[in-house]
Amino acid sequence: MNPDILNERQKATFDVEKLTNILNGGPEKTKRRREIESMVLNDPDFKYEDPNFLSRSERYDQAVRKSAQMILKLREYGIADPEEIYCYKRMFRGNFQEAMGLHFAMFIPTLYGQCDPEQSKKWLPLAESYQVLGTYAQTELGHGTHLRGLETTATYDPNTQEFILNSPTVSSIKWWPGGLGKTSNHAIVLAQLYTRGSCHGLHAFIVPIRDMNTHKPLPGIVVGDIGPKFGFNEVDNGFLKLDHVRIPRENMLMKYAKVDPDGTYIKPPSAKLTYGTMVFIRSMIVGESARALAKSSTIAIRYSVVRHQSEIRRGAPEPQILDYQTQQYKLFPVLAMAYAFTFVGQYMNETYHRISGDIHQGDFSELPELHALSAGLKAFTTWAANSAIEVCRMSCGGHGYSRSSALPDIYVEFTPTCTYEGENTVMMLQTARYLMKSYRQVQAGEQLHGIVSYLNETEHQRIQPQLVTARATGLDINDLSSLVEVYKLRAATLVELAAKSIQKELQHNKNQEDAWNNSAIDLVRASDAHCHYVVVKLFADKLAGIDAASIHLVLLMLARLYALHGISNNSGDFLQAGLLKGSQLVEITTRIKELLSELRPNAVALVDAFDFHDRMLNSVLGRYDGNVYDHLFEWARRSPLNSTEVHESYHKYLEPLRSKL
Amino acid sequence: MNPDILNERQKATFDVEKLTNILNGGPEKTKRRREIESMVLNDPDFKYEDPNFLSRSERYDQAVRKSAQMILKLREYGIADPEEIYCYKRMFRGNFQEAMGLHFAMFIPTLYGQCDPEQSKKWLPLAESYQVLGTYAQTELGHGTHLRGLETTATYDPNTQEFILNSPTVSSIKWWPGGLGKTSNHAIVLAQLYTRGSCHGLHAFIVPIRDMNTHKPLPGIVVGDIGPKFGFNEVDNGFLKLDHVRIPRENMLMKYAKVDPDGTYIKPPSAKLTYGTMVFIRSMIVGESARALAKSSTIAIRYSVVRHQSEIRRGAPEPQILDYQTQQYKLFPVLAMAYAFTFVGQYMNETYHRISGDIHQGDFSELPELHALSAGLKAFTTWAANSAIEVCRMSCGGHGYSRSSALPDIYVEFTPTCTYEGENTVMMLQTARYLMKSYRQVQAGEQLHGIVSYLNETEHQRIQPQLVTARATGLDINDLSSLVEVYKLRAATLVELAAKSIQKELQHNKNQEDAWNNSAIDLVRASDAHCHYVVVKLFADKLAGIDAASIHLVLLMLARLYALHGISNNSGDFLQAGLLKGSQLVEITTRIKELLSELRPNAVALVDAFDFHDRMLNSVLGRYDGNVYDHLFEWARRSPLNSTEVHESYHKYLEPLRSKL
Repeated sequence: MNPDILNERQKATFDVEKLTNILNGGPEKTKRRREIESMVLNDPDFKYEDPNFLSRSERYDQAVRKSAQMILKLREYGIADPEEIYCYKRMFRGNFQEAMGLHFAMFIPTLYGQCDPEQSKKWLPLAESYQVLGTYAQTELGHGTHLRGLETTATYDPNTQEFILNSPTVSSIKWWPGGLGKTSNHAIVLAQLYTRGSCHGLHAFIVPIRDMNTHKPLPGIVVGDIGPKFGFNEVDNGFLKLDHVRIPRENMLMKYAKVDPDGTYIKPPSAKLTYGTMVFIRSMIVGESARALAKSSTIAIRYSVVRHQSEIRRGAPEPQILDYQTQQYKLFPVLAMAYAFTFVGQYMNETYHRISGDIHQGDFSELPELHALSAGLKAFTTWAANSAIEVCRMSCGGHGYSRSSALPDIYVEFTPTCTYEGENTVMMLQTARYLMKSYRQVQAGEQLHGIVSYLNETEHQRIQPQLVTARATGLDINDLSSLVEVYKLRAATLVELAAKSIQKELQHNKNQEDAWNNSAIDLVRASDAHCHYVVVKLFADKLAGIDAASIHLVLLMLARLYALHGISNNSGDFLQAGLLKGSQLVEITTRIKELLSELRPNAVALVDAFDFHDRMLNSVLGRYDGNVYDHLFEWARRSPLNSTEVHESYHKYLEPLRSKL
Repeated sequence: MNPDILNERQKATFDVEKLTNILNGGPEKTKRRREIESMVLNDPDFKYEDPNFLSRSERYDQAVRKSAQMILKLREYGIADPEEIYCYKRMFRGNFQEAMGLHFAMFIPTLYGQCDPEQSKKWLPLAESYQVLGTYAQTELGHGTHLRGLETTATYDPNTQEFILNSPTVSSIKWWPGGLGKTSNHAIVLAQLYTRGSCHGLHAFIVPIRDMNTHKPLPGIVVGDIGPKFGFNEVDNGFLKLDHVRIPRENMLMKYAKVDPDGTYIKPPSAKLTYGTMVFIRSMIVGESARALAKSSTIAIRYSVVRHQSEIRRGAPEPQILDYQTQQYKLFPVLAMAYAFTFVGQYMNETYHRISGDIHQGDFSELPELHALSAGLKAFTTWAANSAIEVCRMSCGGHGYSRSSALPDIYVEFTPTCTYEGENTVMMLQTARYLMKSYRQVQAGEQLHGIVSYLNETEHQRIQPQLVTARATGLDINDLSSLVEVYKLRAATLVELAAKSIQKELQHNKNQEDAWNNSAIDLVRASDAHCHYVVVKLFADKLAGIDAASIHLVLLMLARLYALHGISNNSGDFLQAGLLKGSQLVEITTRIKELLSELRPNAVALVDAFDFHDRMLNSVLGRYDGNVYDHLFEWARRSPLNSTEVHESYHKYLEPLRSKL
């Protein structure tokens, strides 16, 4: 153990294991998680091989091997609980992706959700025995978020009782689905359904794309890999071009909508159930933001106590770089954010499961709020985490650029969350739509409930600069509930500003849609402030339930830092709304500096509590034992460029060059 | 030509070619640049091969081949002017790096700068005929910025008249130098010089590391590649471990300091000349920030007029995504920043060359200001560009993640500028040191000159919230010079705040060094505000020299947008300093929206003016003709994973899996 990092652990003022249990949801969960993780760790079949040393094709190959092994192992160990499967997967994947992810995450669930009983009987056994390897093909080369814009057609031919699937244009080629390029032999294809001459919109069809024995593409199918990306090297994201491909009528998923043999279209009974899946996935992404932050801050903080650089006092030994105020100011807010988002993720998960119960009993009343919240929080947390990972990486100096740090991998594997499952700006505008609707309800005299109930007060709290002093005196920067309160008032103010922008646009003879688009900047700001309030509030709520004094104390520091740092970074909003006086801003900076010093002794313990195994981090800089430099040297020597003493390019180009001069 | 992009070009209100000439520094320069670029374009030896489809070893191989070809071509064409060489290199490199970059950028210049006449006679011909392939080895595994911390030793042995070069620890292994891993056969090694029992600090030594014929590592040398990184795949950044390697006394670079045969050390005459090189390189990086922004905004803006998505008005065709206010709000500030930094880069370059003349005549008077400015602006522009590239990438939806967009490459090749040639936080603190010194001079009654002269006024303008109204009424948000003025006052305020923080710390019995560290957050903020002021000011100054009315008008819009966007994003500073009223912030948002609309018709013309050849951008999304989707499909089909119909992993893992279940 590196003596610096050992010393850090001895300085901790709280019991790390207890905090780990809080993060995991109880000691039993911690125990079970570790059991599952050790199944991967001790398994010779999952022997470690750093994907960074492999070619793309080798990486894909290794990922397929691991996925196949995982399927056998999960059966062997009898792991069936979704949360436990997820835990197992996280461990064997490390920072990387799974080759067959969409088969599990989209293909099988869609079969479960949208097959009629006969279809279930046919397809589920095939999918669950991996005769059928599937993916979910929705987005097209020229079309993403906007489902009505998709061009792929499925035209019913009553003569043969078949659908003809077709990609009429280049822009209609299916593009991006994971596992589509090389792995899958079937795809659920979303296509515009035409029957009896009219279009009935988007429906799902099971389309065989490769021969189930030879795995060769079937006639009329052009399928392949979409090429290298920023991350996701393990995944064969693919394209699919359909040239009048015929599939039996029974391959349309018919649980809700149907097409009769004669071509009669039967509408689905209004089904808002897919709504729930989206909410679930977005809530999961909030948790992923927290994990990415936890990993990044673990790596950067551990390295920052091991690394000595420059001097604070002339002539003294080089200090640990975590003793620089600027380094603390980079990393501790990220650490605080990691905790904040972890608790938000827990809340979203619990709320989803609670509401799911209601939904199954036909009670959809809480769904719109959760839907709006999950959209906004998905965007808010992924954007914030995205930037924060890079802050961590760049806080590690040159070595942060080495793949051995794992930080480049964490970034490229995480950043797509800003775009997939709902592009972030679109998500923010969805939340804004809910906020505007709520605001109008208040204006109409209704009383709101739930998380937007703070808008009830907007009627009495207009943005009146002359009230600055009156309001601002209310803020106590040392009182967390007072900080929650100003975040709430800021959100209310910005919601109102956005609503007024729309009103103003409408007065200028704009129609509703243009008024909306011309207020989009304000709407995104309003959603952002709303989400920020929710995060601060949930952090404070979580604290109320933590008894252990030493842990409560250190989490309170993090919560305060999170809240004050957010105010400092958005101080214009708070000043403009009269929630803060200029002089308080100076106090806030001072208080932030104090919090950085107060957190300093517990920094390593706070990242240790995330309890990432070294194998999961895959980072030389973030090693638990702090022995960074020996292992960095050892890692570098394994670089494929070192497999020969002299690279062939020397003989090919450099030797001949000399003779030509 | 895609009709959408054609239509955009027809809407332009100014002559694109004229603006290109302004950006290039005159029509002759544009002409010559294009001539040089076409030498690469029309050269079959530089045939295009997308490095994204190659393995790391193949990429390195291709880069060495291109470097060797370039050497021959430059001689053939007689291109010798450094600026023209740089232009040629940019074209053949595209978004990627050069394998032998450090041989040209550091090894040869160091020989020129630090060899005594005899050494020059020996080494320069060897280096310029590529018998000697060199690199510059300074940073070590455990040591970066802080030169005194370097551990490598060079101990003089008078018996043999040799230096013994040694890496005493793992952390002393030389780490990161480009070209060190596989390409170079010599390295200039920076080491602590020991002679006659005492250490004389860091000196430079020429160390042979590989045999000049066989290219094999020499005895006592452990050398290799440091492994995969975030970008820079073409470059063999390397490590070098020296085990008591003996080199002749004459291999110490002896232009300034010397060691006599008997081991007597002769001190260098005070030499501040290396100072100038750093200033030059940092000024160049400011220009690189501008180029990275120009490329990224070209790609994102062109794609945003070609891509149609969703709907603004219900039932209407899908609009170009550049018609969404949120998209404009992402991209136009980046476009404005690209122009701003281009002009700052021009200014830095001109100032450097002007001052270089003075330096050669022994006049160093302007160097400290330029040094401070180049440090801060290097950090300011690279940080801003770093985030902005990612904004551009994420504004392209899913396709921004594809390597075909070039945006991932632009990002990973650019981001190291935040760390190399002076880590950005360290740079900001260097500028802050100059600002604090200047502030103290004002306090002591001195009158400052040059760019910091605004601090002369701080004596009379303390942060007095009660003056809010008096000050704020001065701001006219439509007057660019008024905007420059508030940036200046903001900088003055934050410099004063930082100075007061240090004073306060000193009053608490802290020593000077701890007071500095405990004020580091404020110091970085002060530097940031100083640099921001300089950028806005230089943009405004540049405008004053542009006659053509239509170009002046559109650049004025960009300058206003740049300034107002910066105020909006940092509104807390301006409000706190009483430079702005809350109500003006609402006006600023409105004005920003108007500017977005006003710039919209010229957006494509403004990126066209950067005049990047498609080969240079290497981006399917950023194609000049806008024919994105056909070429995306064509690009994807070339992915190496598509070279076989069925990937071997199917037969290896997926087929067997079925039989095991």
